[in-house]
Amino acid sequence: MARRIEYFYDYVSPYSYLADSQLEGLLERTGAELVYRPLFLGGVMNATGNSPPASVPAKGKYMAQDIARWLAKYDLPFTFNPAFPVNTVRVMRGALVTLEDGGFDRYHPAMFKAMWQDGVNLGDAAAIGEVLEKAGLAAQHILERAATPEIKDALRRNTDEAVARGSFGAPTFFVGDQLFWGNDRLDFAEAALLELPE
Amino acid sequence: MARRIEYFYDYVSPYSYLADSQLEGLLERTGAELVYRPLFLGGVMNATGNSPPASVPAKGKYMAQDIARWLAKYDLPFTFNPAFPVNTVRVMRGALVTLEDGGFDRYHPAMFKAMWQDGVNLGDAAAIGEVLEKAGLAAQHILERAATPEIKDALRRNTDEAVARGSFGAPTFFVGDQLFWGNDRLDFAEAALLELPE
Repeated sequence: MARRIEYFYDYVSPYSYLADSQLEGLLERTGAELVYRPLFLGGVMNATGNSPPASVPAKGKYMAQDIARWLAKYDLPFTFNPAFPVNTVRVMRGALVTLEDGGFDRYHPAMFKAMWQDGVNLGDAAAIGEVLEKAGLAAQHILERAATPEIKDALRRNTDEAVARGSFGAPTFFVGDQLFWGNDRLDFAEAALLELPE
Repeated sequence: MARRIEYFYDYVSPYSYLADSQLEGLLERTGAELVYRPLFLGGVMNATGNSPPASVPAKGKYMAQDIARWLAKYDLPFTFNPAFPVNTVRVMRGALVTLEDGGFDRYHPAMFKAMWQDGVNLGDAAAIGEVLEKAGLAAQHILERAATPEIKDALRRNTDEAVARGSFGAPTFFVGDQLFWGNDRLDFAEAALLELPE
């Protein structure tokens, strides 16, 4: 079994944004292959009966402090998105389009930046279109294909698979069948990768 | 402001057990004073509307794997307590008795060991009595005083104070008014301590 890590994420998740910033280093250190698996976090929450942290007010307040500590540790820019919690189903479908048709390497960082640095409302098609154009991507093609049954099914399949394998939130990483939840468990995921042959 | 860390915990919490094993090292590295603040986790959950992780089945299943990873990292013995979730109100009151009357240095490790190594039902007065006697403590005195209004009030005050300061689970650490939740945030707590004058 080669070193391979699956990464289930949603642009709406600030802890996915945090984790995302650390993956380049992890891949360099482990030589692992990274497999992007966009999912719809709202679907995971519904399927598992999980609730967003902020549904407990004290937890939501603490989470803001906790995120700030990770941002300082990682030296990352961040602005809390005024549109949060936004429905990201369209941009998660768009991620699948660009994974299939090309352009994901520009799409992916552009969406995390739009969500967690630039305060863009990713639930709004016009706003998404602007982000795509700025990133030099074919906005109309991506948005149209994101609305096809094929792509809708693909996002549903990723979401269902994550839940079937034990996920209840984002980001969720898998090394084989070992699940790791959150940017704060990347150390454990890295250790699991290093136990595999290169 | 000197280096001082407050530690709100409940013996029922496996993540408190994990955190507890790391405090000696943290104190050595920081020279900080540790203040033990027993609380009743059930009271915190009720007051904040928080739910135990295992109320989401997928989260509960993951938590068992996560705890196993921390145990391996810390090289700690552990047996999942068959009495879990047990009502720890009596043993948390007992902790306050021994903090006031002496013996906490034997009481505290004996209770974590009973709960997370020996599978003792800490909701049962006779079982608690046996643990106390084995630890060379005055079982009858501690159990009797644990039932006094003074001690009951003291546990309620600790619990209420933790909630008022933002706690929603255990273990909760405070460095000044900065809250840190979980054994996995002790690194952040340590960094906060090191920013204070020795």
